Amino acid sequence: MFEQRIKTLGIILPEAIKPLGSYKPCIKVDNILLLSAILPLKDGSLMAQGKIGKDIDIHTAGECARQVVLNALSIIKDELGSLDLVKRCLRLCGYLAVTDTFYEHPKVLNYASNLIVDIFGDSGIHARSVVGCISLPMNSPLAIDFVFECLKD
Amino acid sequence: MFEQRIKTLGIILPEAIKPLGSYKPCIKVDNILLLSAILPLKDGSLMAQGKIGKDIDIHTAGECARQVVLNALSIIKDELGSLDLVKRCLRLCGYLAVTDTFYEHPKVLNYASNLIVDIFGDSGIHARSVVGCISLPMNSPLAIDFVFECLKD
Amino acid sequence: MFEQRIKTLGIILPEAIKPLGSYKPCIKVDNILLLSAILPLKDGSLMAQGKIGKDIDIHTAGECARQVVLNALSIIKDELGSLDLVKRCLRLCGYLAVTDTFYEHPKVLNYASNLIVDIFGDSGIHARSVVGCISLPMNSPLAIDFVFECLKD
Repeated sequence: MFEQRIKTLGIILPEAIKPLGSYKPCIKVDNILLLSAILPLKDGSLMAQGKIGKDIDIHTAGECARQVVLNALSIIKDELGSLDLVKRCLRLCGYLAVTDTFYEHPKVLNYASNLIVDIFGDSGIHARSVVGCISLPMNSPLAIDFVFECLKD
Repeated sequence: MFEQRIKTLGIILPEAIKPLGSYKPCIKVDNILLLSAILPLKDGSLMAQGKIGKDIDIHTAGECARQVVLNALSIIKDELGSLDLVKRCLRLCGYLAVTDTFYEHPKVLNYASNLIVDIFGDSGIHARSVVGCISLPMNSPLAIDFVFECLKD
Repeated sequence: MFEQRIKTLGIILPEAIKPLGSYKPCIKVDNILLLSAILPLKDGSLMAQGKIGKDIDIHTAGECARQVVLNALSIIKDELGSLDLVKRCLRLCGYLAVTDTFYEHPKVLNYASNLIVDIFGDSGIHARSVVGCISLPMNSPLAIDFVFECLKD
């Protein structure tokens, strides 16, 4: 049903980011999926770089957050075979590269949270944290990690 | 017993923060409770704003950390019906908005950790992380997220 | 087997950091180990202090990250009795104290990730997040928290 929902929304998932060496984008333990922090990569490069509140506005940062969700779903589909095997989104943690006077973190992460609920409905309602970082890998404006629950094998 | 303990300590829990939209303050998966990062809100507004080490001293920040614990317990009580159904506090992660020369993070988070142990005794002893953030939502001086274990249904 | 592997690699584990009061270095829930954020303490003091990208170079920070892994393994051995009871490393979260123009976080955390895989092989491949903090306790250049899975009792 979630696969169908994604089609209905006109969403095309990117190709899953491949394992990077000593760590992987996703680890499955029992029916819990722990995802590594994911960057807003699109076609191999970051959608934006810099600090939110100075170099990047909330809308652009929000579009980055949506891209991170799409990358996350690609990774989960790669792990499970189908998004229909997702049971729930349990938790996200959003790390935003910001200035010390930026206080609108929730507005940025809402782009991610809302997309998850658009796709998964009530099964997408999650717990979350969002914090301001002084810098992130590759000068990314944000990174998000996720915990999902999948159906039991 | 934890409900009685809270009364004995003279603690009055605030009303639980209500669900905010695409995310919730608490997600229950099996007998684990994942809490969203909680701010030191009291009667609808932040107890303090600004950076610890510049605008806010350790004691004030510590009082904020205690308030976050009270808010967390309200949320858990709202989820479970009674704090007597808590089994253990497993983990906290404290995010402190600080200056780049502030290094006393543990002293602030101790206010939260000690209150949890005052209430839950040995069942309150937890794992924890505490880090310095460049900014937090609403210019909050801190946010804490929690993982609790509850009794099996 | 992991105990033997550590001997083969010539690694001598430090003594486990002792419980600190209201919190503990490790909490076991079912067969999951949640570790508190661990600092690069060696013989009772930090191996280095300051910000990565200004006071500390990537190699020195990487050596700190390796020390954190050794400290983590000591804590796990103290909890389980033997590292042979480890099943897998599931997740790390690396917190790096950095300047706002430092973007090489993954290079630092690779020192930790690679050491874990050197020791645990395929069972060491984990999910991870790495972010930049404005400051950390004791002016530490980094802290890492871990989630491990152990064999069922």
